[in-house]
Amino acid sequence: MTDSEAIREDNKTIPKTQPRPLKKELLEKKFAVGVDFGTNSVRAVIVDLENGNELGSNVFNYKSGRDGIIEDDSDPNLARQNPVDYIEGLESCIKNAAAAAKSNASKIGLHEFDPSDIVGIGIDTTGSTPIPVDEHGTPLSMTRRFKDNPNAMAWLWKDHTAHAEAEQITRAAHAHDPDYTIYCGGVYSSEWFFSKILHLARTDPEVYQAAASFVEHCDLMPAVLVGDTRPQQIRRSRCSAGHKAMFRAQWGGLPSQEFLSGIDPLFDGIIDKLYTETYTSDAPAGTLCEEWATRLGLREGIAVAVGAFDGHMGAVGTGIVPGTLVKIMGTSSCDMMIAPKDDVSDAIKGICGQVDGSITPGYIGLEAGQSAVGDIYAWFRDLMRWPIENLVPKLETARGHSESDFRAFSEEAKDIVYHVLTEKALKLKPGQSGLMALDWFNGNRTVLVDPNLTGLMVGMTLRTRPEEIFRALIEATAFGARVIMDRVAEYGVDIDRIVACGGLAENNPLIVQILADITGRKIEISRSGQTCALGAAIFGATAAGHFANVEEAQEKMSGTKHSYRPDWENNQIYNQLFMIYKALHDGFGVNGNSSGMSSIMKDLLEIKRSHRSD
Amino acid sequence: MTDSEAIREDNKTIPKTQPRPLKKELLEKKFAVGVDFGTNSVRAVIVDLENGNELGSNVFNYKSGRDGIIEDDSDPNLARQNPVDYIEGLESCIKNAAAAAKSNASKIGLHEFDPSDIVGIGIDTTGSTPIPVDEHGTPLSMTRRFKDNPNAMAWLWKDHTAHAEAEQITRAAHAHDPDYTIYCGGVYSSEWFFSKILHLARTDPEVYQAAASFVEHCDLMPAVLVGDTRPQQIRRSRCSAGHKAMFRAQWGGLPSQEFLSGIDPLFDGIIDKLYTETYTSDAPAGTLCEEWATRLGLREGIAVAVGAFDGHMGAVGTGIVPGTLVKIMGTSSCDMMIAPKDDVSDAIKGICGQVDGSITPGYIGLEAGQSAVGDIYAWFRDLMRWPIENLVPKLETARGHSESDFRAFSEEAKDIVYHVLTEKALKLKPGQSGLMALDWFNGNRTVLVDPNLTGLMVGMTLRTRPEEIFRALIEATAFGARVIMDRVAEYGVDIDRIVACGGLAENNPLIVQILADITGRKIEISRSGQTCALGAAIFGATAAGHFANVEEAQEKMSGTKHSYRPDWENNQIYNQLFMIYKALHDGFGVNGNSSGMSSIMKDLLEIKRSHRSD
Repeated sequence: MTDSEAIREDNKTIPKTQPRPLKKELLEKKFAVGVDFGTNSVRAVIVDLENGNELGSNVFNYKSGRDGIIEDDSDPNLARQNPVDYIEGLESCIKNAAAAAKSNASKIGLHEFDPSDIVGIGIDTTGSTPIPVDEHGTPLSMTRRFKDNPNAMAWLWKDHTAHAEAEQITRAAHAHDPDYTIYCGGVYSSEWFFSKILHLARTDPEVYQAAASFVEHCDLMPAVLVGDTRPQQIRRSRCSAGHKAMFRAQWGGLPSQEFLSGIDPLFDGIIDKLYTETYTSDAPAGTLCEEWATRLGLREGIAVAVGAFDGHMGAVGTGIVPGTLVKIMGTSSCDMMIAPKDDVSDAIKGICGQVDGSITPGYIGLEAGQSAVGDIYAWFRDLMRWPIENLVPKLETARGHSESDFRAFSEEAKDIVYHVLTEKALKLKPGQSGLMALDWFNGNRTVLVDPNLTGLMVGMTLRTRPEEIFRALIEATAFGARVIMDRVAEYGVDIDRIVACGGLAENNPLIVQILADITGRKIEISRSGQTCALGAAIFGATAAGHFANVEEAQEKMSGTKHSYRPDWENNQIYNQLFMIYKALHDGFGVNGNSSGMSSIMKDLLEIKRSHRSD
Repeated sequence: MTDSEAIREDNKTIPKTQPRPLKKELLEKKFAVGVDFGTNSVRAVIVDLENGNELGSNVFNYKSGRDGIIEDDSDPNLARQNPVDYIEGLESCIKNAAAAAKSNASKIGLHEFDPSDIVGIGIDTTGSTPIPVDEHGTPLSMTRRFKDNPNAMAWLWKDHTAHAEAEQITRAAHAHDPDYTIYCGGVYSSEWFFSKILHLARTDPEVYQAAASFVEHCDLMPAVLVGDTRPQQIRRSRCSAGHKAMFRAQWGGLPSQEFLSGIDPLFDGIIDKLYTETYTSDAPAGTLCEEWATRLGLREGIAVAVGAFDGHMGAVGTGIVPGTLVKIMGTSSCDMMIAPKDDVSDAIKGICGQVDGSITPGYIGLEAGQSAVGDIYAWFRDLMRWPIENLVPKLETARGHSESDFRAFSEEAKDIVYHVLTEKALKLKPGQSGLMALDWFNGNRTVLVDPNLTGLMVGMTLRTRPEEIFRALIEATAFGARVIMDRVAEYGVDIDRIVACGGLAENNPLIVQILADITGRKIEISRSGQTCALGAAIFGATAAGHFANVEEAQEKMSGTKHSYRPDWENNQIYNQLFMIYKALHDGFGVNGNSSGMSSIMKDLLEIKRSHRSD
């Protein structure tokens, strides 16, 4: 603290003629830290609580595996993360963000930044990303016995090894009264908490037996900063519990031990290892402990908020209120809404989650989403990069270029392919290509909730061009978004406003304009480019008591910067095309649809899988 | 003749020690010329009548338009050809093939070649490719008045400007008794004779009124060599008349004048401008006239056979007999069979043509086909070349390469892309990709006979690779081929044997092996790489009386060289996959199918077209 106080003192000597804010204001400026654990990296931002401005930020790329993900060549479903990366990243990115804030503050000449003006820390992570831990809360992969065992690491959200377990849990839930899946879309996913735990129990009993508990990544990180990771002391997040572990007050918290043991006796005793209370993220998980205060250079005792998932905190960072649909558009999409408890009496069919307080405390948080959005565009971009990677080397080797030339070449091509495709697709009109696609390249999360669906494209002719395919894929994701909006509206949840955030919303006007044209809605773009981290900071500040509640914090800190309005001529054509999308959607997607098409994708997957096991 | 006789004389001076055939044999060797007019070029071959061996050949590339095709940037349906190219090409390729034969003969040391040993000429062309001509049979575009008017040129088979007329003729035929389309698949195509003539009448009345007749390319070329192109003197081909102009003995030849005038009074008097007699190609169209004998360096008075279409003569060149399915595999496919007249009492639903003597005289010629085969693979190859064309220049310009470097680069890439895709697709197993496609990128010729169908692909995931798509497209065309075979078999026409020819059959083992695996049939490959030209030569020799009939000529001149046998394990998987193909085929392709999918491709095309007319 001494150093920064000295610097602040120095400010007094600055002559009055310079346009600086008053000293009183300087001293009153307060900040919060938002930490956002993503799939490949963790980011910390230092946010000004008066206006939400980012004073400093830093990104730490996980060091283990490929881009931070431990994979298994023999099983494409496996995706784990090393908890060591989490701990190391947590320290590194906060420290570096604070250093950046300090440097930026002096650069912009606004005032000097003092880390002791940070009032709280909020943390979001991916999920469901459960970690088996010992009785101290130490991830088992960080103990000598299970070092380097991927099963003892964090089971990343996109690990799909537990699909058989997911199907079994789904069947059991449907047979149970109440159906525990009713508020999470009717299908329990292979990505979720209990599926993964059961798969661990079946495939690595040693790790499973050694685990004193299973802790979500978003629950463990705040506990680390608080300095007490003992499983029974951790304040578990309502968000992760409600969306991924079937937690609901209505049936007394988690599913019953009897229900779980009925699925597999391996589940015996599991509830005792878990929790009965959950918390929203406006509550503190505790305060920053001495050890971590020292490691981070922050003030001991500041608030550390209860954790939550990235999409949920991101919705808050975007300024979500009842009637707002927040679309977090990245590799996949998260579609978030909140509604007063009385407005959502029925479970909305096909919506992945409806959880009290999972987004804004006091409201039902609704989570929907598309399993692949940007990932589909990236798939096509990479398809179009294929010749660069496969052929240019062959052609060029003859001309005496080196291997490393090609690698640079191929990386450059990534951006150029995307850029050229976008440029050409922009010039096309709706309907002009005659193409229509289904956006199920990674299954369908909402409203069909079916991972066993795949992509489809129809309308190709011998004249079909790459930019037409690219645009059709973008349109497909926007039609998919419209289906979700229609479903929510059917259940009486009104959408007054759409705010988009995330990489795609920030960087690709084509994609957002098509979304506006297809939905016939204005799309506003979130002011912050880092809404998840900003949301985490909002929770950090609220947990610290700096704001009365999340809404008050949002009022000051979140907002939008510009918007896209629908082109009504395009909208009219898209309304026609949407009928065709819907016919394909229902024909291929709705089980038992009279079209006879609904088994096709599944039959192909069945043949594909039977082939793999050969 | 004098020159070549002199050369033969010279032979007498060659010492006996050289291993030459006996003089008697030399003198007895006879040849025929086969001329094959393709879409971009015309080829002549000089064929040995003893064994079908090609002694010399030559290709002439048409000079007009793009690759010989006159296009119209504002109308993608337009495709014309300049008859000047036909005449020039006819002379050039025959002369050069004879020169090549002479040079080859001396190289292989077998004997000297004397053009006067050529006994006849056969000609095949694409079709329906009608040409408006004046009373002398001169193409109107070769007269001063209509010079350079594309409407006065040859209307190439793939000109689709007449789709509205085709639909009108189809409707009228269905309402007529007898339905004139019953032996040509139930749909009269925009590619065919009367559609094109009516479209000409409506869009360029001057040319239409000036035309004394309309002559198929395959009918005009023999008449040119005979030296009498007066429309009423031309011996019209049974093949073109039967397959494209609804000619059939059963209803007295061409459709009635009353029927045609009922469609449009513009047709008034059309029958008088056409013909009432047709001929099979074992008959001579006449004999080589003095003028052309001189131009070509051939003997005056040798037989010139009645013309026919390339696919039909190609089937004969491949050795077709009852029970043989000949698959001519190129950009599209022609599937040819012949059957004794008594065996085909019913019209086979969806088979494009069933015409007495259109292939082998004395038999019903059955023509089916897929509107795009190699064209689909080329489409995907070019999709994969897109980045080479679009990006490599951008990336490389910075490195100081020149524009012309890139063009060479892009041309090179064509072959390499195809080669690499094939290599990688070869390693895949059936079903492994989870993909399924419909091969309707250019509509469906058989058995759905619907140009308003388009491509489809289902099963894509974020891991789908280019080679998987490539293989799925190949499989789709093979499934399409199986549908045709099943249809023919349903009507009691047995298939004992499949012989494939054409570029794809010659050059791509992957494609033929997949066809064998999917159909569960051995696929034999025709010995000749130029079956159409060989077939034309067979007809030239038969018309000359050198053989008693076509079968006798085939016996000597055609055969197969090797074959592909089905892999029965693959076949089993493909049988499962075929069920899925059939479900998609019927769902999307069969009008009024209960799936509700049958309107989707048409609705998309409708929107696409309404867009174009904006």
